[in-house]
Amino acid sequence: MRFSEFGLTTLKEVPAEAEIVSHQLMLRAGLVRRLASGLFTWMPIGLRILRKVETVVREEMDRAGALELLMPAVQPAELWEESGRWDQYGPLLLRMQDRHDRNFCFGPTHEEVITDIARRELRSYKQLPVNFYQVQTKFRDEIRPRFGVMRAREFIMKDAYSFDIDQAGLQASYEKMHAAYSAIFTRLGLKFRVVDADSGEIGGSRSQEFHVLADSGEDAIAYCDADRYASNVETAATFPASAPRPAAAQSLEKIATPGVRTIEDLCRLLDILPSQTIKTLIVDGSDGPVALVLRGDHELNAVKTQKLDGIASPLTMADTATIVKATGSEPGSLGPVGLDMPVYFDHAVARLADFSCGANEVGHHYTGVNFGRDLPEPQTVDIRNVVVGDPTPGGKGTLSITRGIEVGHIFQLGDKYSTAMGATVQDPKGKNQVMSMGCYGIGITRIVGAAIEQNHDENGIIWPGPLAPFDVVLVPINLQRSDVVREAAEALYEELTASGLDVLFDDRDARPGVKFADAELIGIPHRLVISERNLAAGELEYRHRSESESRNLKREEALKLLENSSVS
Amino acid sequence: MRFSEFGLTTLKEVPAEAEIVSHQLMLRAGLVRRLASGLFTWMPIGLRILRKVETVVREEMDRAGALELLMPAVQPAELWEESGRWDQYGPLLLRMQDRHDRNFCFGPTHEEVITDIARRELRSYKQLPVNFYQVQTKFRDEIRPRFGVMRAREFIMKDAYSFDIDQAGLQASYEKMHAAYSAIFTRLGLKFRVVDADSGEIGGSRSQEFHVLADSGEDAIAYCDADRYASNVETAATFPASAPRPAAAQSLEKIATPGVRTIEDLCRLLDILPSQTIKTLIVDGSDGPVALVLRGDHELNAVKTQKLDGIASPLTMADTATIVKATGSEPGSLGPVGLDMPVYFDHAVARLADFSCGANEVGHHYTGVNFGRDLPEPQTVDIRNVVVGDPTPGGKGTLSITRGIEVGHIFQLGDKYSTAMGATVQDPKGKNQVMSMGCYGIGITRIVGAAIEQNHDENGIIWPGPLAPFDVVLVPINLQRSDVVREAAEALYEELTASGLDVLFDDRDARPGVKFADAELIGIPHRLVISERNLAAGELEYRHRSESESRNLKREEALKLLENSSVS
Repeated sequence: MRFSEFGLTTLKEVPAEAEIVSHQLMLRAGLVRRLASGLFTWMPIGLRILRKVETVVREEMDRAGALELLMPAVQPAELWEESGRWDQYGPLLLRMQDRHDRNFCFGPTHEEVITDIARRELRSYKQLPVNFYQVQTKFRDEIRPRFGVMRAREFIMKDAYSFDIDQAGLQASYEKMHAAYSAIFTRLGLKFRVVDADSGEIGGSRSQEFHVLADSGEDAIAYCDADRYASNVETAATFPASAPRPAAAQSLEKIATPGVRTIEDLCRLLDILPSQTIKTLIVDGSDGPVALVLRGDHELNAVKTQKLDGIASPLTMADTATIVKATGSEPGSLGPVGLDMPVYFDHAVARLADFSCGANEVGHHYTGVNFGRDLPEPQTVDIRNVVVGDPTPGGKGTLSITRGIEVGHIFQLGDKYSTAMGATVQDPKGKNQVMSMGCYGIGITRIVGAAIEQNHDENGIIWPGPLAPFDVVLVPINLQRSDVVREAAEALYEELTASGLDVLFDDRDARPGVKFADAELIGIPHRLVISERNLAAGELEYRHRSESESRNLKREEALKLLENSSVS
Repeated sequence: MRFSEFGLTTLKEVPAEAEIVSHQLMLRAGLVRRLASGLFTWMPIGLRILRKVETVVREEMDRAGALELLMPAVQPAELWEESGRWDQYGPLLLRMQDRHDRNFCFGPTHEEVITDIARRELRSYKQLPVNFYQVQTKFRDEIRPRFGVMRAREFIMKDAYSFDIDQAGLQASYEKMHAAYSAIFTRLGLKFRVVDADSGEIGGSRSQEFHVLADSGEDAIAYCDADRYASNVETAATFPASAPRPAAAQSLEKIATPGVRTIEDLCRLLDILPSQTIKTLIVDGSDGPVALVLRGDHELNAVKTQKLDGIASPLTMADTATIVKATGSEPGSLGPVGLDMPVYFDHAVARLADFSCGANEVGHHYTGVNFGRDLPEPQTVDIRNVVVGDPTPGGKGTLSITRGIEVGHIFQLGDKYSTAMGATVQDPKGKNQVMSMGCYGIGITRIVGAAIEQNHDENGIIWPGPLAPFDVVLVPINLQRSDVVREAAEALYEELTASGLDVLFDDRDARPGVKFADAELIGIPHRLVISERNLAAGELEYRHRSESESRNLKREEALKLLENSSVS
């Protein structure tokens, strides 16, 4: 492709609307343009990248035996009423009425539609297992679309749905998709991790997320390579203390702590560590407020906590009036001693002795608190986020934490949708059997943003080869004024294109510096500079986008290098 | 692909919902399944066909220098208000509100969005010409979705939009698209015609439609190969009479015609031909009713008529009360003699002498009516549909009429959108210049239906090679019981697949008759039957879908035949 014919416009300035580097670079490099909040046009160069993602995804899904189909984007409300999600899904679901006032939505996902197809098309266990997938435009009416294509409202997703006769079949289908997803992200040249995850509103039992690793990732991932373990911090489990608790050494004392509102304030006043304190949070429960007690340096985990009996889901902090009424105190001076409500203690709290906490009296705290003396022995639960150094579930090591961007998610749905919608087949004995379902998503548009978050420098994008919009950029010096350069550049362009490479020929009448800057911004892996001086020596100047220095290569060497590096 | 792994289910019965043969065959062959009114899922085999269409379309668009991008399906109302179409478009536009009560629509077309992109991205005449296209899901909320994918509500369209500095540039861009479209339909193996058309609600000056020819087509096409002319009958022009009018031979007479309501009744009573009568239709005009006078055997053309001065658009027949008040008579006895309202005479009427018509008195008609004596000499206009034998505009021949299905449409929009939305570039003198636009659509999903309407027989679909979901089907006889057949079939499957052919291997444990019927229904071009007897002779039984007889070929002959027929 000739630059002059490609209609590409790059930007020097960082657009003000873009908060994160991938969004900034996508706008600057002309990959996308914003139409409205959360709506983006994929410009020609961006679409090339998107298609490369789609191609790899399709090839690996086909290889795994999945069958591609294409369902409508617009879905009738009746199916969502059958599954119960018309009411559950809330304002993320973009709803509309047709000219006959019938209710429809713009599908954010297709469990209902595929289950409707399955219950009509699949009659016998002999037709199973089957896995249908599509690459399709979805819509989620995000309350705050941001981060460009990473949290857009309209986006492209690969969604797949497997149908099996039983749980063992589902397990096998799920593992096939696990392998296919691993192959996809490996082929795309991305550093990623598979992590255990919460199933959320989709429902079902087991699920795992595929995360592209990046410091800017929204999700924290706890992992331990020794234990082959990785989990979203949202769901990573903590465990009861194995080490015994130290004996009590201090006596209980109530002290005045005027102005102390936070753990930080308390530690500063008493010259102790946050890990020697506990904090008490009051949340809404099914029969009035419930207290949650954590070590002062730990964070509450809402996903795990809201699954406990008697806790409201989604987790909701109690308001101040409720707290004052229930404790006689205000947030900042709360504690479990003498507290008259149900209390959940985190596992880690049970290991503490001689700790400090609020005294349920404004401006007062206790020090030297001990279980079994000042408080009953606690029954403990898992309500906090894991931290670096926590033991792994397998017990073979301790956790590290990294950050990632979720680009894929695989679920064992089980019979949630097939039971609700009556999707059955005849088993070998002629009996009707509800099918076991799995669903498997990949955020196609999101991958492009995530890849940039993982691969960039101060000059622009550094595409992994398989994602690059072009394999190589040709930068001729003095193209418009030198016949030698023009002939050599045209010949090279033709030869490289014929060898199957995607070549961007920068034929603009612009300064070399402008061309170099654009090539770096766009992130093309290989750059060849064609100048009269080098041509005289039979050479081309070569530089890889990830290298800081260029080097001169004989023309044949350069061609060989490009052909060897070209992606399958 | 093995049939057993392809999840394909065919139907023996003709589904009751399907009115036309393409819809029936698409359902029977399992190409699509209905989700709701006008919403279809493309099943795996249907999607294969769709992708073949898309690939050819993309290749020819790219070859013509158009740049593919992808705009959002969901469009903000503000842009449609700028162009004025938010109010004009009516209930075909599927409207919705997001969670913040902002108005959006599901795009039925993208003139507004692309013009918004163009006014932001294009600054200089140096960036022109440019032609952006996309292959995308659209929605039109049809009042009566029917004919399966031919008039669905959600459908896939290839839409392209060209931008030029002036009309001469637009003309060149338009001709490029004309050539690209011709190449596309030729490569798809379809019989088609390019016809002059009305621009309709899109606006603009010149437009042409691409029609796949089929007896069942909704559109009538007037054409004359000698004159290289083709036009949708909607817009095909008629001309003032060149031959002189015969002299009057009869005197005017008013006769009683009790019970005569139609031209047919009148002709039977008087024993004359419809071409010796005229009919008078009363329509709404800007200042009261207007009469339209046509020869009795001609049909009114609404598209041409509603463009006349003083006629309501869209054309609306006057109600009976208005007619009675204005004429003193009722429909069935109307005529131009003594009629007190504006009258438009069709060109063909002026050639008549001694004709019959209503007398504006219930149950009475005139015979022997003549212009210049009983009526003033008429000023004539073009308000009827052309008929077979009408002269062509070029005058070199006469018209024939065939039927077609519109699958493509190219428009010269001019400055309609670029003026309304302020899409300008700097011209060579630095002055702002409004861009000239063209737009170019192809109904991707519709092509599949149209191709079937053109190519089928009583047993099923007969795909043109380039559209076929599979090039060849292998039908082994006794696969499950004969090792010889199984080994030969597997080897053949592998060899053909390796040679780049799309092969369907019917590995089901089913009777040969079932397999033959499905292969014919699905319409696979080449069929190879593998049986023990033929294998013993080193032969395969070959049949092309369009042939009635099969023949035995040596294995090598069969392979060579398939390789030679394989589509580029």
